[in-house]
Amino acid sequence: MAIIVQKFGGTSVADADKIRRAARRVIEKRQAGYQVVVVASARGQQTDELVRDALELNPNPPKREMDQLLSTGEQQTVSLFAMALQAMGYEAISFTGGQIRMMTDGVYSKAQIKSIDAEVIRRELDQDQVVIVAGFQGIDEFGNVTTLGRGGSDTSAVALAAALKAEACEIFTDVDGVYTADPNVFKPAVMLDEISYDEMLEMASLGAGVLHIRSVAFGKRYNVKIRVRNSGNDNPGTIITHEVPQMEGVLVSGATIQKEMAKIGLIGIPNVPGIAAQVFARLAEAKVVVNDIIQTEVSPQKATLSFMVGTSDLQTAKEVAEDLKSELHCESVFVRDDIALVSVIGVGMRSQYGVAEKMFGALAKAKVNIDSITTSEIRISCAVGKEEVEKALEAVCLAFELDKPARQRKPV
Amino acid sequence: MAIIVQKFGGTSVADADKIRRAARRVIEKRQAGYQVVVVASARGQQTDELVRDALELNPNPPKREMDQLLSTGEQQTVSLFAMALQAMGYEAISFTGGQIRMMTDGVYSKAQIKSIDAEVIRRELDQDQVVIVAGFQGIDEFGNVTTLGRGGSDTSAVALAAALKAEACEIFTDVDGVYTADPNVFKPAVMLDEISYDEMLEMASLGAGVLHIRSVAFGKRYNVKIRVRNSGNDNPGTIITHEVPQMEGVLVSGATIQKEMAKIGLIGIPNVPGIAAQVFARLAEAKVVVNDIIQTEVSPQKATLSFMVGTSDLQTAKEVAEDLKSELHCESVFVRDDIALVSVIGVGMRSQYGVAEKMFGALAKAKVNIDSITTSEIRISCAVGKEEVEKALEAVCLAFELDKPARQRKPV
Repeated sequence: MAIIVQKFGGTSVADADKIRRAARRVIEKRQAGYQVVVVASARGQQTDELVRDALELNPNPPKREMDQLLSTGEQQTVSLFAMALQAMGYEAISFTGGQIRMMTDGVYSKAQIKSIDAEVIRRELDQDQVVIVAGFQGIDEFGNVTTLGRGGSDTSAVALAAALKAEACEIFTDVDGVYTADPNVFKPAVMLDEISYDEMLEMASLGAGVLHIRSVAFGKRYNVKIRVRNSGNDNPGTIITHEVPQMEGVLVSGATIQKEMAKIGLIGIPNVPGIAAQVFARLAEAKVVVNDIIQTEVSPQKATLSFMVGTSDLQTAKEVAEDLKSELHCESVFVRDDIALVSVIGVGMRSQYGVAEKMFGALAKAKVNIDSITTSEIRISCAVGKEEVEKALEAVCLAFELDKPARQRKPV
Repeated sequence: MAIIVQKFGGTSVADADKIRRAARRVIEKRQAGYQVVVVASARGQQTDELVRDALELNPNPPKREMDQLLSTGEQQTVSLFAMALQAMGYEAISFTGGQIRMMTDGVYSKAQIKSIDAEVIRRELDQDQVVIVAGFQGIDEFGNVTTLGRGGSDTSAVALAAALKAEACEIFTDVDGVYTADPNVFKPAVMLDEISYDEMLEMASLGAGVLHIRSVAFGKRYNVKIRVRNSGNDNPGTIITHEVPQMEGVLVSGATIQKEMAKIGLIGIPNVPGIAAQVFARLAEAKVVVNDIIQTEVSPQKATLSFMVGTSDLQTAKEVAEDLKSELHCESVFVRDDIALVSVIGVGMRSQYGVAEKMFGALAKAKVNIDSITTSEIRISCAVGKEEVEKALEAVCLAFELDKPARQRKPV
């Protein structure tokens, strides 16, 4: 019998009515002949409340105890979810991460999944049980509770779908699916029927907060079909999968913006091998997440190295840069803290010319000045002034017809 | 190094300030050179809130899921408690029942402890950690979460003290200790410095709600010195232990009342062997808890059998009695539902005459009519009318000088 994994986020299980509504989703799939595994998050604002309780006792709470504490939120949801299903006439059993041996490494608060004991779940499924698993949590080899970090329930769900070879993993959330752009900024954005893992990875890492980025990477690696759906309606949502033929004609699937960015430059660093590696090793040591890196030779002896960081990392990054300035004898450090990024993403651009040109043309026509440009195989990002980024997004979206479903766009 | 187990109930950990106050109790013992194991209950009204959440989804919640749900309350407390201790400069680590392999049978909601892996705890204690254990919970052999029933944290604490051969188990609660009688009813009641396990067992089963009865039985079996203390002050509390020499001179240690009782009688049952066994087997089958049993021969052929039940079991007990009436061809069933029990308890009465006489005399002088009498080796109970039980308690307390510390009472 085919297995479906359904994941319900905190807003989808926030109260008794919402849990019942989620349970009806499960029952629909049972009635359609599927075995169903549910992954659930903590109810509503519960995790935030527990964090607040912890901070009241310890401004710097030990991570092991934090994971022990936060994992209770999901445990409560899954037992309540099982009770709801039983009240509705369906057999159901809940499991914590530990009970299904969701084994992780020992990195509290951002543990990585190593293995899952799918047998426990299969045994229950084969006895007509709906299996409800606490998302976000696992245990390490010593039985300590670990958590996968915020949004980790998505990863739990996709990992379970992979372990169980499920037909699909449905992620229920409070939006209809993945859009060509954030509809709060670009109102005419349209929902995508399908998107590739690679595109979704770029979208997720660039700030489209629909799905936890690790869950997409997991889905890609283990070939799990992920469907993002709205828990409040019956829209089909967006399927995230490997590239499919009909995607080929599409140049650009979506556009994103990232605010709260800053750019730091080291001007006049020695133009010799190994310098960039040294700079980024130091930043990594200070746990600064670096986004885009640009190095340009200004003379045979000197180069300029710049990179983007989130503004939350700016202070630390600046300190590292100042240290490096004296160590490397570079001329100066510059900081621009009013930067934002606008990006277009699409597997189609791999084999097409003119995407960059079209993007720069659209920004020029909208009189948005481009600070710097970085590209990957399926993405082009432009750094622009923070106050212009929404105007930039709109210009780019219209240029690539992201207000229309893919099939209605002009052929490239 | 000697080990102390300290148990804090829900009111003693209800908020951040109370957790910090409890943590200071731990630190005092650490500073005095002890290794400390803490057992904690769910915070304040949390368990009640979770029960309410469950009933909203399922009026008859499955017990496995209920245990899975309720165990989160204690898990939250222990991680918060460990955080508080760490903020105060002491190493601390929390464990769920499962993590220390508190193995129980599989009887959800009232599981019995089978074994504890003390090694996990010893290892942490030897690394200077305060170990904080979630009370009330364990796991069965399949890893399902079980709970020990209301008040089960007391039992967890005493069981841990036994497994660790702790010097003592301190039970912190919201009263100063064990009193000669309920001070809400008999104001001049005095606190006992010491009481024997057997007396405490009788007191607990007769309605003195200070300690969970199973924890006392556990303490007796494994010889754990239990100290009941007030978490809000430094009073020494009451020690529960085996009989000690100074107890010998004391006739009666305390008096209790039990309201909400009913008496059921089967009149004119056949006076042949095996009938009583048959009656009580049927009541046990119907899960009716029977208190006191009185059988009297009224003729060579006929007898009367009566017993006490809690009023919550009255309806079921009445139905069983009616069934038995026709099966056994007895004359009639009578029910008195306005009964209460007043009892005196004391190991001293084992070797002393005159306790019963003194009790009956006191009740007669107070013009309280006695419905029936039952005794055990260390207890005498009189059934009286419900509306007279408080007057009865006062009369009995004064007769046995329970308003004075034992050493000030007149010699027997």
